[in-house]
Amino acid sequence: MTIRIETLDAFFNPRSVAIVGASSNFAKIGGRPVHNMKIAGYGGRIYPVNPGAAEIQGLPAFPGIADIPGAVDMAVIVVPMPHVEAAVTACIEKGVKAAIVLSSGFAEISEEGAQAQRRLADLGTEGGLRIMGPNCMGVMNTGTGMIATFISAIGDRGPERGTISVAAQSGAFGGHCFTLARERGLGLNLWATMGNQCDVEFSDCLAYMAQDPGTRVVLGYMEGVQDAEKLVEALEIARAAKKPVVLMKVGRSEVGTAAAASHTASLTGSDAVFDALLRQYNVFRPHSIDEMFDVGYAFAGGLLPKSAKTGIVTVSGGVGVIMADAAEDAGLELPPLPEATQQRMKALVPFAGTRNPLDVTAQFINDATLMETMYGALLKEGDYASAVCFLAGVGLNPLMMKELEPSLDAVRRRFPDHLHMLAILTTPERRARLQAMGYLCYEDPSRAIHALGVLAWYAEALRRGPSAPPPDLPAGAPELNAGTAINEVEGKRILAAAGVPAVPERLAASAAEAAAAATAAGFPVVMKIVSADILHKSEIGGVILNVATKEAAGQAYRDLLARAAAHAPDARIDGVLVAPMVSGGVETIMGVVRDPVFGPVVMFGLGGIFVEVLKDVTFRIAPFGIDEAHRMIREVRGYPMLEGVRGAPPADEEALAGALARLSTFAAINADVLETIDINPFIVLPKGEGALAVDALISVLEAAGG
Amino acid sequence: MTIRIETLDAFFNPRSVAIVGASSNFAKIGGRPVHNMKIAGYGGRIYPVNPGAAEIQGLPAFPGIADIPGAVDMAVIVVPMPHVEAAVTACIEKGVKAAIVLSSGFAEISEEGAQAQRRLADLGTEGGLRIMGPNCMGVMNTGTGMIATFISAIGDRGPERGTISVAAQSGAFGGHCFTLARERGLGLNLWATMGNQCDVEFSDCLAYMAQDPGTRVVLGYMEGVQDAEKLVEALEIARAAKKPVVLMKVGRSEVGTAAAASHTASLTGSDAVFDALLRQYNVFRPHSIDEMFDVGYAFAGGLLPKSAKTGIVTVSGGVGVIMADAAEDAGLELPPLPEATQQRMKALVPFAGTRNPLDVTAQFINDATLMETMYGALLKEGDYASAVCFLAGVGLNPLMMKELEPSLDAVRRRFPDHLHMLAILTTPERRARLQAMGYLCYEDPSRAIHALGVLAWYAEALRRGPSAPPPDLPAGAPELNAGTAINEVEGKRILAAAGVPAVPERLAASAAEAAAAATAAGFPVVMKIVSADILHKSEIGGVILNVATKEAAGQAYRDLLARAAAHAPDARIDGVLVAPMVSGGVETIMGVVRDPVFGPVVMFGLGGIFVEVLKDVTFRIAPFGIDEAHRMIREVRGYPMLEGVRGAPPADEEALAGALARLSTFAAINADVLETIDINPFIVLPKGEGALAVDALISVLEAAGG
Repeated sequence: MTIRIETLDAFFNPRSVAIVGASSNFAKIGGRPVHNMKIAGYGGRIYPVNPGAAEIQGLPAFPGIADIPGAVDMAVIVVPMPHVEAAVTACIEKGVKAAIVLSSGFAEISEEGAQAQRRLADLGTEGGLRIMGPNCMGVMNTGTGMIATFISAIGDRGPERGTISVAAQSGAFGGHCFTLARERGLGLNLWATMGNQCDVEFSDCLAYMAQDPGTRVVLGYMEGVQDAEKLVEALEIARAAKKPVVLMKVGRSEVGTAAAASHTASLTGSDAVFDALLRQYNVFRPHSIDEMFDVGYAFAGGLLPKSAKTGIVTVSGGVGVIMADAAEDAGLELPPLPEATQQRMKALVPFAGTRNPLDVTAQFINDATLMETMYGALLKEGDYASAVCFLAGVGLNPLMMKELEPSLDAVRRRFPDHLHMLAILTTPERRARLQAMGYLCYEDPSRAIHALGVLAWYAEALRRGPSAPPPDLPAGAPELNAGTAINEVEGKRILAAAGVPAVPERLAASAAEAAAAATAAGFPVVMKIVSADILHKSEIGGVILNVATKEAAGQAYRDLLARAAAHAPDARIDGVLVAPMVSGGVETIMGVVRDPVFGPVVMFGLGGIFVEVLKDVTFRIAPFGIDEAHRMIREVRGYPMLEGVRGAPPADEEALAGALARLSTFAAINADVLETIDINPFIVLPKGEGALAVDALISVLEAAGG
Repeated sequence: MTIRIETLDAFFNPRSVAIVGASSNFAKIGGRPVHNMKIAGYGGRIYPVNPGAAEIQGLPAFPGIADIPGAVDMAVIVVPMPHVEAAVTACIEKGVKAAIVLSSGFAEISEEGAQAQRRLADLGTEGGLRIMGPNCMGVMNTGTGMIATFISAIGDRGPERGTISVAAQSGAFGGHCFTLARERGLGLNLWATMGNQCDVEFSDCLAYMAQDPGTRVVLGYMEGVQDAEKLVEALEIARAAKKPVVLMKVGRSEVGTAAAASHTASLTGSDAVFDALLRQYNVFRPHSIDEMFDVGYAFAGGLLPKSAKTGIVTVSGGVGVIMADAAEDAGLELPPLPEATQQRMKALVPFAGTRNPLDVTAQFINDATLMETMYGALLKEGDYASAVCFLAGVGLNPLMMKELEPSLDAVRRRFPDHLHMLAILTTPERRARLQAMGYLCYEDPSRAIHALGVLAWYAEALRRGPSAPPPDLPAGAPELNAGTAINEVEGKRILAAAGVPAVPERLAASAAEAAAAATAAGFPVVMKIVSADILHKSEIGGVILNVATKEAAGQAYRDLLARAAAHAPDARIDGVLVAPMVSGGVETIMGVVRDPVFGPVVMFGLGGIFVEVLKDVTFRIAPFGIDEAHRMIREVRGYPMLEGVRGAPPADEEALAGALARLSTFAAINADVLETIDINPFIVLPKGEGALAVDALISVLEAAGG
């Protein structure tokens, strides 16, 4: 299924809403949506549907949806579970475009409920009705006052309008986001919860919000992936729209994954793969709700820093150091102020710290204009794209703030293109005023710095522009067929033909052939017995290294056959492999695994202990381009090995990246039949000398019905 | 200098306080301490000293400190810098025991100021007066209302009393802690800022607070270490008193360290070493101010969990998963509920998650007693020492809370020995009520879990009890002398005698000696040329491995001498080293470095790329016992190498730990003369077979005057 944005519009921008099962009691689930839309000033038509009432909350009510005189864009269904199917059918007959089923009692309860849910989905598909839910908490558009939800947190005032949109698979989580946004004074734009996702999924809502002009950032929450292609499509829409996504995906840990699996029916897949997907699409993945909102709030400001260079202004030298520590963790740069600026600052405040952080000291209490002077000089003369200013508890002191606010306002006006953050303890009212000046306000300085780091990371991804497309394979690259066993020699030949270089090898069937193959390969060569029945070659002496002459090659052939005969008399021998010895270079491994959710996934790591002891590997969903391959290579902790350690020359990273990207294309093209590819080792030679697979194993799925 | 707790008592528990430079204007620095003590109800005598006033803020004032009729325990000095010295002299003459110098203009400003500060220190030492400051923000004891500070945040109400004490080197940071504690509704006990630390240091205050019975946790803030021994003494006092310390030490990053160095005159030393010290003393080191207060608040409750096993109760399955993820990060365990309990819970709420997290679902809204039933069953039937319950925004709903509070109160009463945490959005009033019931309340569930993890970590350290003492060295262990070059052979002999096993070696001066030595060592042996003039032995062929016979040993001797003569004809040759070949085992490195602050520090890491590429090393300040050595070994990422990978047997960790601990004793005993020890490699053989140094270099300091 692909995402059809236009069919979702009726959920977020309906001109008329019917509430099926509306109640006069606005504390009840059926009463709340009517009440919420009324207090939020929804401008479209509200049609309460209830066969037992002529009027509901001051609005004329209708016995059935068919009785509504005009067109109905959307219906909110709140009737008990056994009546939902009839309501959906009535919606279809009425020509309603979208239905939100708030009622529960479906797949979350029982197999019977799951069946009923599938029937709803089928009805909707046949009747051209999009369905959100069942068992969800509904949808909001704060801009139009369309508050189609029963969450109680709405209270007596409508939600604050803003630029943050929230898409939450879980209604409880969505409700909590609503409350948190209100507690933090953050305005929302669109809000949706998908519940059991019988039709509309998380990915649909994410995509809709990403392309919505009123949304500056999407906060997403998901537990599992129903349809991987749709998720990727949604992420592509967000990337194309340059709309930041902050996506909480739960189930990172073992217990967490088990809990997530028991909590939803979604496939969870490998968390490492999911993580890689988010990196591929520049999506920020928070690990706590606080972090989600800290970062979402920063994005909602709509300004991104033009570089990672940050100036820190502080009224406490010690907190300046804490912020410098946090900046390093956050990937920000703190270049020092120019020497001349530093000297001028020292002249103003003799015991100021002037490098960066710039410590104004408590002197600003005596002279509030110092803040303007020093903060202003920092931005004018330092090469910074952003500033974070720590003001401690000054925000709680009305007298001091009266002096300070004009200074802060002036600096912000002078430098409108810089990103300005304050770390300040203050009242909600004063925070709102500082925000209106253009300051992002945090209480904790480290959290401000962390959010700024995420903005800088995202801005850098935008500057980088779209990733290179996955490379084409060389002409004549072979395709894999299901059900065909591929031996080592063939595997390497296939990979080489697909542009993943491999050691050239020949299979010799006689001593003479071995000698000829060795001569052709160039000495020294390595020779190995090849037999599907002998798995651990080295243990039976089935590998001979450093064969240096033609004669030795012939002898080695005979020795290998003799050893095989002695240790495994019944083994069928395919021959003896002859290949040039590869010496030097850095040992890496790469491979393809089949993720249950995302299909073929490319893995990369350094060889030996890096993989075996440190599990130092990284993933990308296939296919990807060469710049993504470079990022992948640089993610592993062992990356310095490729730069050259112990006097070793730098390795041919370009060749490695090219091989990884082509492997990803090959995996994607053969996704239907490919089971795994395991290339170990893949030797990366010194820069300019290339890289090649020394051992490789391709396995394909069994043929259908085979 | 050692810590003299009894001399500090006058700062925290004075019966009378003179304010030298007191002002009638309570907005002024000289007026605030008087005002603050009055509003906080200080029960001792307050003596304002000001030659120009007969009465200050309703209290009789005195022209000089000598004019005060009774005894004065403590003086707060607020006069301008040029008058401070005279005030201190007057204090000494009056027999005052403690003086807090709030005045600034000393070492933080100029060399002249630094000299004046040293004079103050000398005066105090000679006159038996302890001095806090100068340039500090003073001291508080909220229990007695002794608020000897001018921080403006005190405002019109005195500080809240509580069990958290704060020791902050920086006055600005101390002031911010005060404000933050108030904003978070946390009560303080003692509070002190040390400023320029001319006499009383951070360590003094930390030690005083740690032994103070009214203090449950000390929040510390430091930028650098003045006196390492005193800091260690303070940490020992805290450890002996089983008083948790949450210590913010700034300057983790490169820029941060530079900023810290420019901000204070303190030595910073290596941050990795400081970090190790804190681990050695079970001190928690937060990285942000929020984290500092999150953890400090949890400790202030005074209850520690009896194990790391935690039960999670949630009203949102999704947030339960976030909490499970956080629990894994925090080192907590989430064992599942017994099967029978799970079935009973399912019967209560069919779509509840019942494993652990226990998801009560939104059903508790309809039936608040469900919370009591399910939360109670979790603690009664599950094997948990603590519970964290996520209640979303329910705390903002008065109706729901009215139903829920009796349930929460009942559960807490039934299980008073468990640690109970709530993650809840609520009002300050309601939070206070929940806290009074015995709940630790957080807004963010991940932050609650993180704080719980720190409590469990600390509780585990307490259960472990005191560390084993550093081992004694074998009888006759040699002592090092300054100014003596130690060659490789001697170095290993010294280490072996000190209980750090090393390859037994002999230095042969002839082919016949070499042959005899090889025979004695047992074949095969390795032979190396020994000359202070030949540094890179292997490059000139100066190492011969695998010498297998007596004859080969004689020949190897001659070959080595010939190679040396050919490549370095002028080199003075000490002889040829003969040692048994060590094969197998895991390569590690250990050493001793001299930290500018903490003196000898033992380093440990796995050999090869673990050190060279991954910088995977860990430190401990010497000396330490064998259990600390085991913890050190298990800290490195490469630890699995010692457990055995690729089918290798587990290594002799006991022998390794013993060697590390004895090396630490040896380093501590020789701290005065030792420069570095570098043991690389130190081979750890399979379990039961021991471990030994293969190469080692000891260097000592030059002799004094040498």
